[in-house]
Amino acid sequence: MPDDLLLPGQRIARGVCRLLRSHDFACLEEVVPKPGLRVDVMAMGPKGEIWVIECKSSRADYQSDRKWQGYLEWCDRFFWAVPPDFPSEILPVGEGAGLIVADDYGGEIVTMAGEVPLAGARRKAMTLKFARMAALRHHALRDPGLL
Amino acid sequence: MPDDLLLPGQRIARGVCRLLRSHDFACLEEVVPKPGLRVDVMAMGPKGEIWVIECKSSRADYQSDRKWQGYLEWCDRFFWAVPPDFPSEILPVGEGAGLIVADDYGGEIVTMAGEVPLAGARRKAMTLKFARMAALRHHALRDPGLL
Repeated sequence: MPDDLLLPGQRIARGVCRLLRSHDFACLEEVVPKPGLRVDVMAMGPKGEIWVIECKSSRADYQSDRKWQGYLEWCDRFFWAVPPDFPSEILPVGEGAGLIVADDYGGEIVTMAGEVPLAGARRKAMTLKFARMAALRHHALRDPGLL
Repeated sequence: MPDDLLLPGQRIARGVCRLLRSHDFACLEEVVPKPGLRVDVMAMGPKGEIWVIECKSSRADYQSDRKWQGYLEWCDRFFWAVPPDFPSEILPVGEGAGLIVADDYGGEIVTMAGEVPLAGARRKAMTLKFARMAALRHHALRDPGLL
């Protein structure tokens, strides 16, 4: 998608996905682990690790999100991703959450998140959901004739 | 991809993927379960079922493939997919393999394959491989700037 059609959070997500790709994580944007909860980026590592990354483009964007602790139970590690000029001192990093600084083109893991491994049944269910969602989205892109 | 750039087997694969999508299976083409073995279509069902489909466009195409029994250990069900004018009597359907008749646009399951469930460890490993491959391919299509 051309850069100027992306919203600020989506531009950060693009940089985050490029960063995580370089760490051998496969990323999917806008994943819904359960009804009413949407995560900006879900990433799957080579051993099946599941990371969730929430992208916040500005202080206001962050302050309007009161549900972030709900994300923790859907991943092994949770990160905030913010642009370089974000006032990162307002983020609850250090309560287990990690920090990624990213722009449109890439980023850096500034603080590694703590790990709280998912229970086996939930990891299995999330891996399957991720697999099917990724394949269905890929299918829709490569076969525009798909109904 | 425009129709006329697809090889005959890829056109059948497209129809197969559309068919299986209608059965709520998410499809990925050209999956390599292990080095040296490539399956035309791998499909993942809502309960994590893994189906493998080999597409054969002609008698010669089928007769050049001596490795099909090697596919069985990578799926719960195995199908041949052939065009309507294929001499399907030459296929070893009924030895557990199923039969799909497909063209460029869709298809039909003519004979349901027998089920031989994967062992848990292999299913887990294949689901993870499928998930990461689908997400990486999707990423490459939606972010052409990805290196």
